[in-house]
Formats: sequence, C-alpha cells, structure tokens
Amino acid sequence: MQQFFSVADAAGPTAALIAEVLACRQNPKKDQLLGLGKTLGLLFLNPSLRTRASTELAARNLGMDVHVLNGGADTWAMEFAQGAIMNNTRVEHIKDAAGVLGRYYDILGLRSFASLQNREADYGEPVLDALKRYSGKQLVSLESATRHPLQSLADMATIQSHATKPALKVVLAWAPHIKPLPQAVANSFAEWSLAAGHSLTIAHPPGMELAPQFTQGATLNHNLEEALQGADFVYVKNWSAYEPYGHVPTNYQNWMLTEQHLASAPAARIMHCLPVRRNVELSDELLDGPRSLVLEQAENRIYAAQAVLRRMLLHIV
Amino acid sequence: MQQFFSVADAAGPTAALIAEVLACRQNPKKDQLLGLGKTLGLLFLNPSLRTRASTELAARNLGMDVHVLNGGADTWAMEFAQGAIMNNTRVEHIKDAAGVLGRYYDILGLRSFASLQNREADYGEPVLDALKRYSGKQLVSLESATRHPLQSLADMATIQSHATKPALKVVLAWAPHIKPLPQAVANSFAEWSLAAGHSLTIAHPPGMELAPQFTQGATLNHNLEEALQGADFVYVKNWSAYEPYGHVPTNYQNWMLTEQHLASAPAARIMHCLPVRRNVELSDELLDGPRSLVLEQAENRIYAAQAVLRRMLLHIV
Amino acid sequence: MQQFFSVADAAGPTAALIAEVLACRQNPKKDQLLGLGKTLGLLFLNPSLRTRASTELAARNLGMDVHVLNGGADTWAMEFAQGAIMNNTRVEHIKDAAGVLGRYYDILGLRSFASLQNREADYGEPVLDALKRYSGKQLVSLESATRHPLQSLADMATIQSHATKPALKVVLAWAPHIKPLPQAVANSFAEWSLAAGHSLTIAHPPGMELAPQFTQGATLNHNLEEALQGADFVYVKNWSAYEPYGHVPTNYQNWMLTEQHLASAPAARIMHCLPVRRNVELSDELLDGPRSLVLEQAENRIYAAQAVLRRMLLHIV
Repeated sequence: MQQFFSVADAAGPTAALIAEVLACRQNPKKDQLLGLGKTLGLLFLNPSLRTRASTELAARNLGMDVHVLNGGADTWAMEFAQGAIMNNTRVEHIKDAAGVLGRYYDILGLRSFASLQNREADYGEPVLDALKRYSGKQLVSLESATRHPLQSLADMATIQSHATKPALKVVLAWAPHIKPLPQAVANSFAEWSLAAGHSLTIAHPPGMELAPQFTQGATLNHNLEEALQGADFVYVKNWSAYEPYGHVPTNYQNWMLTEQHLASAPAARIMHCLPVRRNVELSDELLDGPRSLVLEQAENRIYAAQAVLRRMLLHIV
Repeated sequence: MQQFFSVADAAGPTAALIAEVLACRQNPKKDQLLGLGKTLGLLFLNPSLRTRASTELAARNLGMDVHVLNGGADTWAMEFAQGAIMNNTRVEHIKDAAGVLGRYYDILGLRSFASLQNREADYGEPVLDALKRYSGKQLVSLESATRHPLQSLADMATIQSHATKPALKVVLAWAPHIKPLPQAVANSFAEWSLAAGHSLTIAHPPGMELAPQFTQGATLNHNLEEALQGADFVYVKNWSAYEPYGHVPTNYQNWMLTEQHLASAPAARIMHCLPVRRNVELSDELLDGPRSLVLEQAENRIYAAQAVLRRMLLHIV
Repeated sequence: MQQFFSVADAAGPTAALIAEVLACRQNPKKDQLLGLGKTLGLLFLNPSLRTRASTELAARNLGMDVHVLNGGADTWAMEFAQGAIMNNTRVEHIKDAAGVLGRYYDILGLRSFASLQNREADYGEPVLDALKRYSGKQLVSLESATRHPLQSLADMATIQSHATKPALKVVLAWAPHIKPLPQAVANSFAEWSLAAGHSLTIAHPPGMELAPQFTQGATLNHNLEEALQGADFVYVKNWSAYEPYGHVPTNYQNWMLTEQHLASAPAARIMHCLPVRRNVELSDELLDGPRSLVLEQAENRIYAAQAVLRRMLLHIV
C-alpha cells in the first residue's frame, strides 16, 4: 500500500481490509515486532487528540516509534506555490519540509483540513499530494480537505461487527451545528459505504448536497423521518454546503436526531465520529442509550490505523 | 488500587506505601517488565513540566508507554453539565472524552486545577470524579482542585529518608507570593503528615486557615517564630484563603522564611514543592544551603508515581 | 565528552568525530543497546522541528528514551540573575530548573537562541553555562546564542562525503533575508571549517563581518563573484550584523545566490541548513538542481547527534 487517501487505496474489496481491522482488534499485539526500528512521522497542520492518540497506539502495537510534529498557520506556516518568492510569513516550502520528512521517517501521516474558503483548492488536495510527491514515502491521510479515510474504515469495521443480516440499510443523516464544518467525514463515509455494498440513504435539508462524485449510487432524501425508515445504522454528522461552498443553513434545528425520529427504525444503531455537540446534533438519550456505537467507533480507530500501517510495513519489508 | 486521589487511597498505613516509594528509588528498574504493552494516558487541563516529566519517567521505569494529552480552556474546552445543550465554546462533553480515553488507555492521569472562583465547585472535584466514572479505568490525580497526592507522597518519602528520630515535628509554613495559588499542595501535605503520624504545626497569618477537614489534629499558630521552635522539617508554601475563597493578603512580606527565623530550629530541613519564587517565599541562603531538600523532593516525585502505578499494574494483572 | 557546545569539544582532530558520524550513518543501529534505560531530556526555549526530530531519532537509534520540554518566554519564563527577588513574570530560577533536570535525565540538550538585543549577554552564553553548572550533567547544545555545533558537525560530514580532492575551497556566502537572524550557524560553520582544515572564504557585504574570534584564518571578501571562483562547496546563510549588533542591511538583494554567480565554480555544491527562504536567499534552480546538498545535510543531523550522544554514553558507562 503506497498511500491511504481514499477508498480507492483499499486496493481490492473493502471487505478484505475490514477483516484485517477486526483481526487487529482481536489480537492487537500479533505483529508487535513488524515495525521494530521504524518510525512513523505524524504531521498535524490542524489540531487533533483522538486521531493522534489512536494512530500512536496503532503504531506502537506494531512496534514502531512515533514522532508528532505540530505545524499550522502560526507555528510552521508553509509555502505551497511553485516558484514563490518567500518574502512573507511563510517560512518553509513544502518541497523542503517534505524532503526532510522523507529522509527522517519510514512512513508519514498528514492532517490538513479544508480551508472552506476556496473549493477548487480544497478539492484539489494540494498538501497531501505535495507531501507524498516530495517525501517519496508512504503516506496516510489523518483527515484531508475532502476525506477522512481512517475514520471511515473504523466506521465500516464497526458496522461489520454489528451487522445482523447480509443487506444493510445505512443512513447518513445531516445534523445541525453551530459552525461551518468540512465535508470530509461525510464524503468519506458515503464512498466507503457504497464500496462496502451497503444500501446508502443520505438525508439532508435542501441545498446540503455533497459533491456528486461521492454519492453516486446513494438515495438522497430531504425528509429525515422518511429516510430513517427501517434503517440498520444511522450516521449522524454535520457538514457545511458544497454549493455555495462552506455555507451554513440556520433554520434546521429540527434535524437534531432524537429517539422520536427512530419510531420506524427500532433496530437502528447510532453512529457519530466524535467530538459531538450533545443536544445540538443529536440527543443525550441516543448517545447514552443502547443504540449508541460511538465509543466503539472511537476504539476501532486504533485498529483501522493498525491495519493500514501493517499493510504499509509489509510492503516495505 | 483503583484510584489515587487522596491519602485515603493509600489503603492501609501510609508507611507501607512510603516504603514502596523508597524501594523504587533503591532499584528503579526492578519491575521494568511489569507494564510492558500497557499505555498510561496523561490528560493535562493545566500546564505541567515537573509532574509530566516525573510521571513519564516512572511509567517508563515500569515498561509502560505514555501518551500526553494537553487540553484546557482554549484547546479542548470540555462541558461538564448533565443535559447541556452544547451550542457554545465547549466542544466535547466529559462523558464522551472520558469514554474514549477509557477505551484507549490502561491507566489514566489527570491534572485539573482549582478555578479559585467557586469554592463549592472546586471542592466537589467534579472533573476527577467524572473522568473516573465515565472512563471506567484506574485514575491517578496529577493535582486536582483540592489535593496533590503524588507531591505529598514524595514529600513523605523525603521526610522518611531524613528522619533522625521516631517522633518528628513538621511545620507547614505559609509564605508570601505574588498571585493567588490553590490550596491543593497545603491541604495534601497536611493530611499526609497527619496520617503518617507526624506532629504537625501549621503557621499562617490570621485569616489563612485551610479547610478544617484537612487540619484535624494539627496545631495552628499565627506566630511564625513560635511555630518553628524545634522543628525537624519546615514545608514552605503559599496558598490563597479558603474564606473568602481565593483571597490574597498583601501585608505579610515578613513571612518570607529566612535563616534568621530558624534560630530555634537548628536541625530543621527546608522543603518546597517547586517552582519557588526565590527571595519572595524563602531566601536564597536557605534554598542553596545545607538545610534544603527541594531537589530530593523533586526526584522522589518519580518514585512516588512509580509506587502508585506499580500498585495499579499489580491490581490489573 | 562532558559537553558539546563548540568545535573545541570535539576533543582531538575533527576528522575522528566526522568519521564517527559517517559510521553511524553507515549502520544506524550498530549501538542500539548502548543507551537502553537512559533518558535524554531536551529543553527547548525556542521552537524547533528539524533539530528536535533529528535528535530524537539519534537517541532512539542508541536505545535511549527522549523527553521534550518546551519552555520559553511565555510558557516557562526563567530567571537567570543571582540573588533576584522573583516578584515578576519569571516563575522559576535556572538554578532550580537545572537542578531538577539534572536529577531526572541522564543527558540534557538545550536550545536557547540569541536575543539579538544585548551582544555581551548573548556572547557570554549564560543559559548554556548555567544549565550545565547547576544540572551537573552532560549537555548538548541544540543551538545556542553563538553557535549551532550539531548543524556544523552534520555539515562537515556532508562535505567529507562529497569531497573529490584533498584540499577544498569552502565559501560561506552571506544571503539576504527578511528579518534579523542570529550569527550562530555562520559562526559555527566558520570555526568547524577552519578546524577541519578547509580553505575558507567568507563573502559578505561591507559591515557584515562576523565576530573576529570565529574567522581567524579565513579570507574575507566583499565581492561575491570573486569569492566564489573555484569553490568546491558554497554554504549560503543569512546573518544579522555583529556591529551594530542585530542590524539588518536592506540594499543587498543582489546577494541572492543564483546559477549565474557560479560560472567560475562549475563543480561547486550548494549547502544550506534549512529552513530556506526560496528565491530570497538563493534560487529555486540551485535548490532543486544537482548542486544541492541540503537534504543530505538535514539527514546528517541525525548522525551528527548520534555520534555526539554515543560519545557521551560511552563516557557514562
């Protein structure tokens, strides 16, 4: 595995990679010598606690060392433009930073959020691509502008663990929030669900359509109750608009998911990637009740990262 | 050992735990495989260097991995209220954060200082309790609103190492400072000294009484010179008032401890938890002279943490 | 090796230490058990990514644990004055901080930049000296006010690897920048080049002379083209003036190094310590072309640190 940016990098049926996640969970230390003497470099251009923690645990389970590098707008402002005359606040070019990281680390991870300012720039994923090209190393996305593949892989493994029948109805339900959030988690969940063969319904208010390349094959529905009927898994998530880019609608508080919405989905399990705005995105009763899978999703982040790093290490060796 | 919040958690005579601290110091690597494959998660809601460093060294001596998570008001503002509608600046509920940490780590540590704004809230220790309840894991206090038990355990081991007779007179001496400090270190030192069977005198200006539940059995004295007579150990520490809560008196500069104060205590050793405001809390001559035990206290922080983590690991296994 | 502050600490011909760097590079894991159970404490009073990363990798190659402590003006303001009455914003005296670090760590590293405010204070190196004196431990400079010895050692190893003849002409070429930078890298490169026996030319605009104690034996030249004739290695670096201290000249943009300047130095290799202001200090064509050694310099930082730590560990054992 040369890179892990999107579902396309699963290289083959997602079922195989999901099975590897669950095998890591079954026996986390089974490959504890595989990465010995190797170091994973994690570059965070945006804050992280859950992703950092789970990825470090994954790497240590494989015997790797981990170095965390925190950059970002203020602390390590990077220049991305070819031929730039660097006489401003950006202190290092991605070419040089990536070149050095490629000399220092065996595998790299990168977190680089969407700006939500410029859709073309965000959806072009220049940071991820530049780091990969100039470092020459295997690279794992820790959430990029358009996708969060480790989250989605963990989500697929969670669904797999709780599947009670072969054909599953999965609903991605837009939820209110107080600030504009990227589309990355929603995009990623959609493409992985479809690749995994689930029947996917996406429920959202009018105007909140995701980019079409992620939803080919899904059913879109502007009526939340209708969309939820007979759902096996409901993934609750806010995102800002794809068009106009980054727009936040204000009059959909009633899209906050509650037990009441689930009358026609008695078996539905509730998912969320955390952190969650309780009683804004969904209700306490759901998060604290027996439908909730949110902590198991968070735990599976460890094993999703471990399965991916394991494939990369096997490729190295 | 399920938790380490106060002297009550020593579970039996403090002498046994103090002896374990000194045994760790004698041979720091004696249990170097005990924690292998286990990870300690340290959550700092307030800054730390000494506590973080000593606790990491302790965990590594036992073979554990350590992850440090820095949160706090700005970077990872947490909600504590049950049923809160999370539409403000607090991005994650302690329930969810604790639930995830409980899934990620084998043992947890938490630093959460007193606000000094609301006495009832501080003395109720809601953060420590919530993290323990929702994580379901063993939890070590790295200084809470009302106590600093690892510091006190290190202090007791330091006193034990330098005791020259069976019955010791220990003086906790209030000192001036330039800003309001919590009562945690003083509270904790008082309860541990009394539990260890020392004769404890607390010297402070009028109005600076600690909460009564920590000083039952101690002698209180508003006259510093009188309190110091015949002292074996003098613990110098500032704290702000318990009533009115957080108040800082301004006219007690003469409480800065100097050699002159110790005329009637020729054998007294001087202690302080560091960092210390030199020539404000106590004089250079004391800190740099032969009476000082401050560096040994700091070193014993490693072995205090190690003895506590060791008990927790033995409990797990 | 008790300390590593300057070329004087190489203790003998620099060729021996340079050979050790290249041996570490040849086989990075050859001493992987040498530092087992020992911890390197790295105190950064200024930001770092490259130095921190390379030094951590070096220590891990030797089996050591590494703790990073970030201090500085805001977060851990230290007092350096003897006898200071600490009633201001400085929360801990270097005596106490150093004393504790000496109890916690086996070897210490310190980064402490020049203030560029007070030349006598900077060139007296009080921070480095105080940390060494009060900690009582072996101490590695991770860039001090006046020198950056690990960088220079890595640079010497890089030159050694690419030397095509016994007598080398090395040029240290001043370059423009947008803000005042310390003289540390330039000072250090000069003293190491001279100690290594290279013929050193320093090219800079009038008024940009380095402190004379670093340039004894070098040829100074105010004409860049002339200085570059027949050069084997060209080290590009900005520094602010030694006199008046910290001054930045503004009318030397034409000192930006380009391929055109190198007409009379066809074999010259280009060096820079990174991060580099592209197209301000030197041109893209040089950095991205076959003359560039900058990534190899960065990689050799690992092995320079490893050779120094290895000597210190052998001294301990």
